[in-house]
Amino acid sequence: MRILVVNVNTTTSITDAIAKQAEAAAAPGTEIVGLTPEIGAESVEGNFESYLAAIAVMDRVRSYPEPYDAVIQAGYGEHGREGLQELLDVPVVDITEASASIAMMLGHKYSVVTTLDRTVPLIEDRLRLAGLDAKCASVRASGLPVLALETDPERTIEAIVDEAEAAVREDKAEVICLGCGGMAGLDDKIRERTGVPVVDGVSAAVKLAESLVGLGLSTSKVRTYAPPRPKRITGWPLAKP
Amino acid sequence: MRILVVNVNTTTSITDAIAKQAEAAAAPGTEIVGLTPEIGAESVEGNFESYLAAIAVMDRVRSYPEPYDAVIQAGYGEHGREGLQELLDVPVVDITEASASIAMMLGHKYSVVTTLDRTVPLIEDRLRLAGLDAKCASVRASGLPVLALETDPERTIEAIVDEAEAAVREDKAEVICLGCGGMAGLDDKIRERTGVPVVDGVSAAVKLAESLVGLGLSTSKVRTYAPPRPKRITGWPLAKP
Amino acid sequence: MRILVVNVNTTTSITDAIAKQAEAAAAPGTEIVGLTPEIGAESVEGNFESYLAAIAVMDRVRSYPEPYDAVIQAGYGEHGREGLQELLDVPVVDITEASASIAMMLGHKYSVVTTLDRTVPLIEDRLRLAGLDAKCASVRASGLPVLALETDPERTIEAIVDEAEAAVREDKAEVICLGCGGMAGLDDKIRERTGVPVVDGVSAAVKLAESLVGLGLSTSKVRTYAPPRPKRITGWPLAKP
Amino acid sequence: MRILVVNVNTTTSITDAIAKQAEAAAAPGTEIVGLTPEIGAESVEGNFESYLAAIAVMDRVRSYPEPYDAVIQAGYGEHGREGLQELLDVPVVDITEASASIAMMLGHKYSVVTTLDRTVPLIEDRLRLAGLDAKCASVRASGLPVLALETDPERTIEAIVDEAEAAVREDKAEVICLGCGGMAGLDDKIRERTGVPVVDGVSAAVKLAESLVGLGLSTSKVRTYAPPRPKRITGWPLAKP
Amino acid sequence: MRILVVNVNTTTSITDAIAKQAEAAAAPGTEIVGLTPEIGAESVEGNFESYLAAIAVMDRVRSYPEPYDAVIQAGYGEHGREGLQELLDVPVVDITEASASIAMMLGHKYSVVTTLDRTVPLIEDRLRLAGLDAKCASVRASGLPVLALETDPERTIEAIVDEAEAAVREDKAEVICLGCGGMAGLDDKIRERTGVPVVDGVSAAVKLAESLVGLGLSTSKVRTYAPPRPKRITGWPLAKP
Amino acid sequence: MRILVVNVNTTTSITDAIAKQAEAAAAPGTEIVGLTPEIGAESVEGNFESYLAAIAVMDRVRSYPEPYDAVIQAGYGEHGREGLQELLDVPVVDITEASASIAMMLGHKYSVVTTLDRTVPLIEDRLRLAGLDAKCASVRASGLPVLALETDPERTIEAIVDEAEAAVREDKAEVICLGCGGMAGLDDKIRERTGVPVVDGVSAAVKLAESLVGLGLSTSKVRTYAPPRPKRITGWPLAKP
Repeated sequence: MRILVVNVNTTTSITDAIAKQAEAAAAPGTEIVGLTPEIGAESVEGNFESYLAAIAVMDRVRSYPEPYDAVIQAGYGEHGREGLQELLDVPVVDITEASASIAMMLGHKYSVVTTLDRTVPLIEDRLRLAGLDAKCASVRASGLPVLALETDPERTIEAIVDEAEAAVREDKAEVICLGCGGMAGLDDKIRERTGVPVVDGVSAAVKLAESLVGLGLSTSKVRTYAPPRPKRITGWPLAKP
Repeated sequence: MRILVVNVNTTTSITDAIAKQAEAAAAPGTEIVGLTPEIGAESVEGNFESYLAAIAVMDRVRSYPEPYDAVIQAGYGEHGREGLQELLDVPVVDITEASASIAMMLGHKYSVVTTLDRTVPLIEDRLRLAGLDAKCASVRASGLPVLALETDPERTIEAIVDEAEAAVREDKAEVICLGCGGMAGLDDKIRERTGVPVVDGVSAAVKLAESLVGLGLSTSKVRTYAPPRPKRITGWPLAKP
Repeated sequence: MRILVVNVNTTTSITDAIAKQAEAAAAPGTEIVGLTPEIGAESVEGNFESYLAAIAVMDRVRSYPEPYDAVIQAGYGEHGREGLQELLDVPVVDITEASASIAMMLGHKYSVVTTLDRTVPLIEDRLRLAGLDAKCASVRASGLPVLALETDPERTIEAIVDEAEAAVREDKAEVICLGCGGMAGLDDKIRERTGVPVVDGVSAAVKLAESLVGLGLSTSKVRTYAPPRPKRITGWPLAKP
Repeated sequence: MRILVVNVNTTTSITDAIAKQAEAAAAPGTEIVGLTPEIGAESVEGNFESYLAAIAVMDRVRSYPEPYDAVIQAGYGEHGREGLQELLDVPVVDITEASASIAMMLGHKYSVVTTLDRTVPLIEDRLRLAGLDAKCASVRASGLPVLALETDPERTIEAIVDEAEAAVREDKAEVICLGCGGMAGLDDKIRERTGVPVVDGVSAAVKLAESLVGLGLSTSKVRTYAPPRPKRITGWPLAKP
Repeated sequence: MRILVVNVNTTTSITDAIAKQAEAAAAPGTEIVGLTPEIGAESVEGNFESYLAAIAVMDRVRSYPEPYDAVIQAGYGEHGREGLQELLDVPVVDITEASASIAMMLGHKYSVVTTLDRTVPLIEDRLRLAGLDAKCASVRASGLPVLALETDPERTIEAIVDEAEAAVREDKAEVICLGCGGMAGLDDKIRERTGVPVVDGVSAAVKLAESLVGLGLSTSKVRTYAPPRPKRITGWPLAKP
Repeated sequence: MRILVVNVNTTTSITDAIAKQAEAAAAPGTEIVGLTPEIGAESVEGNFESYLAAIAVMDRVRSYPEPYDAVIQAGYGEHGREGLQELLDVPVVDITEASASIAMMLGHKYSVVTTLDRTVPLIEDRLRLAGLDAKCASVRASGLPVLALETDPERTIEAIVDEAEAAVREDKAEVICLGCGGMAGLDDKIRERTGVPVVDGVSAAVKLAESLVGLGLSTSKVRTYAPPRPKRITGWPLAKP
C-alpha cells in the first residue's frame, strides 16, 4: 500500500519530519511518500496561506504519478480536503479530522493545542464543518509561530505543554490533539505532565488511511464529491513542466 | 465610492451580467468595477473549482490598482472570503452571506434556490460557517447547471421557480435567496408565483458594502483576519505580468 | 426617503440623542424622524418594561401619519419587532439585530457590551430568536444603569470600555456592538483601547433600512408577519387623541 | 391554594372554558380564579395581538387583589410570561411550557397541534426560548382559526385530529400537546385515533403550579426576573379604575 | 396513590433518607414506598456502577407487587429510566430530569451541584438526552464522594455550597439543583448563601409523579417505550426468590 | 494482537456471524475472539434489553482471561460502552460509533439503516452522546425484526435496501451505515442499488481497534472513564462459576 502524505507548506524539512512520523505509524508493507507543494508559503498560518495551500496540495498530488492508495493532507486546520476528494478516487484523510476522530474514541472531551492564536478559528471551523466539534472542549494556542519550533524548540514546546495542561485542568479535556506537525518529543512531554492520551494527527491519519484501504472503502461520488464536470479551466494545473 | 465586484469564474459574459446587476443596485456616486479572474473554471460548481476560484479572486484583486473602497465576491457558496479579508484593509462582502443577512430581516425563515444539487452542501457549509444558517429553511437545487441558463433559459428558470415554490409551501420559507448569479427576470417570476420577497445576492452585497463604507467600518484585524505575517511564498502572485 | 426612528422609552433627551446619531449615519436625502412613545418607562431595563415598550412603540408608530419608508426600533434587546412587522408594509429594522448583522461581516466573533446585568438574558434571547447568536462571543454588562450615562458619564463609560476590553481579550471578540443607545464618544474610546471595530446599533439600522428601501424589499407577508386578521380589539389604540 | 388562570384574549366564554378545565385538573382545596383581560383581541393569533395580550395579562393580574398562590398564563405560544415573573413573587406558569415539560416525561418526542399556521413560528419560538424545543418533533397547524371551534366545531376538531395523526405517523411524535385552549373532547378523539397520550396545557399548568407551591418554590429574583427598578412609568397601569 | 421511590445504590440508610424526603414532599393521601436494589454498589459514582444500577432498579421494581401508581428513580445522572418506561404501564420519573424541569420554571438558567467530578459528564449526558440541557448553565462538583456526606458532613456540605455560590456568581445560574440525594439542610444553606431557589430532585419528582397520575397520563407506548417484544431472555430476573 | 468481539445478545449463531465478519476485516496477525454473553435477550431491540446487554457484556468480558489488546462491543445503538471503558485498560470500540466515524470520512452526510423502528431513537441517542450526529442525515428502519433476517432473509434484506435507497434519494445520504449485524450480502446489494459506500460496523470497529492498538493509545483515565473506586458491590459479577 502506498500513501501520499502531502505537506501544506513549502518547507522540505517539515515534509521530512512529517514523513518520518508517518513511517513510524505505518504498518509493515505500507510505503509512505512525502510530498512538498511547489507553490505556497514556507509555513501556513492563516486563511490566505491556507487557501493557497489547498490549491498547491491538489496541484502537487495531480502531478504525482499513479498508482497510490490513499492521500493524507498533513496540515492542521487547513482548507482543501473537499477538493482533493473530488479529484481523486482513492480515500483522502485530513490530519485535523483524523486526530479528532481518534481522540473521540479515547475520552469524553478532547482539546487541540496549536501554535499561533490566529489559527484557532480555522481549526474550530474545520472541526465544525467536519461535524467533529461536539466533543471539542477547546482549541488553545501557545502564541508562538510554527517556525519557532526550529529556532527555540525548548521554549516553544514548554508553551504548548502549558496549554495542554490548562486544557485538561480548566476545559476538562481528557485527550489532547497536537494541532501542529513535526514536534518530536512533544507528545511524551504532554503525556507526562497531564496523564492523558496524546494524539498526533499524522500518525492517526496513517492508521485511518490504512483502515479505509483495508476496508475497500473510498469517497462517495454521488453528490458532494463527484468528479468535476468537464469544462474549460484556465491556468490549471498551476505547476508547468 | 468604488466597489470591485469580482466574478468567481472566467466567463466574462457572467462578469458583465453581475456588474450590470450591481450597477442597478448601486447608489448614485458608487462606481462598480466588474473583474474577471485570470485563472479558473468557466463556471464554478464544486469544491475543486471553488478553491481554485478562491485563489483566483485574491490574485485578481491584488493586481487591481488601488484605490477602491470595498470588494464583493460574487459567487454563491464559494470559498475564499476569509483570505480576501486578510489581504485587504477595505471591507469584503460575500454575496451568499449578504443575501442571507438581508433575507433574515424580511421573514422568519428563508430558503436558497440554486442550480446543481452538488453545490447545495457548499452553500449550506458557507452559511453555517458564517453563522447565518439558523433561519435557513432549506437550500434547494433545480438540478440544471449554471450554463444552462444561457442555452435553455426558459426551462432552467422554470425549474428554479418550481423549487422556490416548494420551499415556500413545504419548507415554510418566507423569503427566497437566489443562489446563483446573472438571472435576469428570475426574481420577478419567483415573486409572482410565491408572493414572497426575493433577494438577489449581488444587489444585497452592493447595499451592504455601501453601508459598511458609509459607517466607516472595515474588517477587524486583531486576530482571524490579521494581515499574513511576512514570509517566503513561492509562486505568488499567480498571474505573471 | 423618510425613516422613523422610535425610542423605546419615554425620555425625550434619549430620543434626541438617537435621532442625532441616526442623522449622522443617514445618506443625503434620508429624513430621520425621531419618535418618543407616549406610554412606558423612562428607561427600559427588563422584561416588564420591554413588553410595555413593545406595545408603546407600535402605538406611537400607528399614530404617526404616513407616508414613511422604514421604521427603526431603537432599543437594544427589546421585545416587539415582530408586531411592528405585522402592522406595517414598510421594512422594520431592530437595532439589536442590525448591529449583530453588521458585526458578523467584520470579524469572526462579536460581543455586545451593555449596561445592567439583568438585560443580558434579554439581549441573548433576542439574538437567538433572530438567528444571529452563533457568532456572538458574549454579552457583557457593566452593572451600571442606563441613566447613569447622564449622571456620571465618565465612570459609566469607563466601566463599559472595561467590559469591551475583556470581551476582546478573554472571549475572543473581534468586533464590539454597543448594547445601549445615546453614548457619544463611547465608540472612539472602545476602538482606541481594543483596536477592534465598534458597531453602533442606530447607525447600523439606518444603513440597513436604507439598503432595504433601496433594494425595494420589505417584510414577507405570507405567514408569520401577515397583517392581523380583522377582529374585535378592546382598548386599542392605547393613546387616545 | 388559590391559582389565577388568566385568559390572553377578551372572550369571556373562553375564560369560562379554561377555568372549567383548570378546575377539573385542580386538587381538592385548590381554588381556580379565571380572569379575562380588559384590553386586547377577542382571539390571539399573531405577534401584535400576542404582545398586546402580554401587557393586558400583566395589567389584569396587577389589578386583582392579593392573596393568591400562583398565576397561569393560559395562551398557547404567547409573549409575556417573563414580565409576569418580574412583577410577581408567586410562581408563574405558562401553558405552552407546562405542556411541553409534561410531554417530555411521557415520550421520546412530542408534537404540538394548533389552529392557524401563522401561530406556528410563535409557538416554536416560545419553546426555543424556554429551552424545551429539543424534543419537539413538530408544531402543526390545521389552518382553521381559533373561533371556528365555536362556529364549526366538528370540522375544526377533525382537522386538528388529522394533524395529530400526521405528527405521530410522519414526525414520530409519541405525545401530542394541544396548542389551543377550550377544546372539549379533543383530547379523547386524538387519543383514540393515535394511541398516544395527549397533554392539555391548562391542566398541565395547574398541576405544575400546585407542585411549585407545594414545594415552596417560586421565581428566582437574583437577575433576569428581579422586580423592576423603581422609575417613572407613564400610562401604567393601563386599565383606569 | 402509591409511589415507589427506588434508590440506585444498596445503602439502606440512603433509601431511608430519600423516602423521608419524598414523604415530606408528598400530598396527603400519597403513600411513599422506599425500595433498595438487591444488587449493585453501595454508592453509584460512574458508568459501570450506574449501568449496574439501571438493571438493579428494574429488577427491584419488577419484584415489587402491584398495584402502585408511579415509580421514581432516585439517582442523579444515572442510566436506566428508559428501560423502566418500557417495562411499566405507570409513569416513571427520574430525579435528574424532574429537578431540571422544575428549575427551568423558576429562572433563566440553572446549575447542578454534585459530589465527584467524574459524575459531571454523566449528569450532562442525561440532561442532553432528556432535552433539558439548553438552560443548564453548568454542572459543578465539589470533588468529595457521596459517602463523605456521612463521615464528614460539615466539610462536604461546605464544599458543595461553595460550588453553588460559584455557579450563581460565575455561570449566571438563577436556580440550583441538588445533584445528589440525602442531604438534609443543604438546600437551606445554599438558599441562604446565594439567594436563589434550590430544587431537590426527590421532592420535585414526587410532585411531578403526583401530577402525572392526577392528569391520568402515563408513558407513550407507540414506539420508543413499547413493551419489550416476547422473547427468550437468559438470567432475568436477576434476583432469585 | 487479540481483539475480543462481544455480541450483545445470547444467540450464538449471531456471534459466529459477527466473528466471521471481524475476521474478514482483520489484518494478518490479528486474532479475533467472538464472545457471547451468558445472560440477556436472544436479540436486543429496545432499552430494557439493551441495558441488560450492557451489564451482560461487561460481565462476559470480565470473566475472559487476559491478555487481549482491545474489545469491540458488537451491538448497534446499544448502551454500555462507557462502563467497559471504566473497567478496562485496553481500548474499547463500539460498532455504532466506529461505523459513523468511518462514514464521516467518505461523504458529506451518512444514514443508518436498521431493522425495527423502535431502535431508531436508541441509535440516534447513542450517536448524539458520542458527538457523531452532526453529519447523520437520518436513521431509517425497515420495520422487520432482527431475527427475521434468519427466517425470511430475502424480504428482510429487500426492505432494508429500500430504506437505504430512500436515505440516499430523499435524505441526501452519501454513505450508508448498516445498523445491524450479521447481514451477509447486504452491503453488496445496497452498494449496487445506491452507488454509495456501505460501512459495516463490525469491520469498521476491527480496523479502528487495530489502529488504536497500533498507535499505542487507549482510554483516558483522568476523569469520566477512571476505574471505579473500590467499594462494596453486591451481586457482581453476575455469572457465577
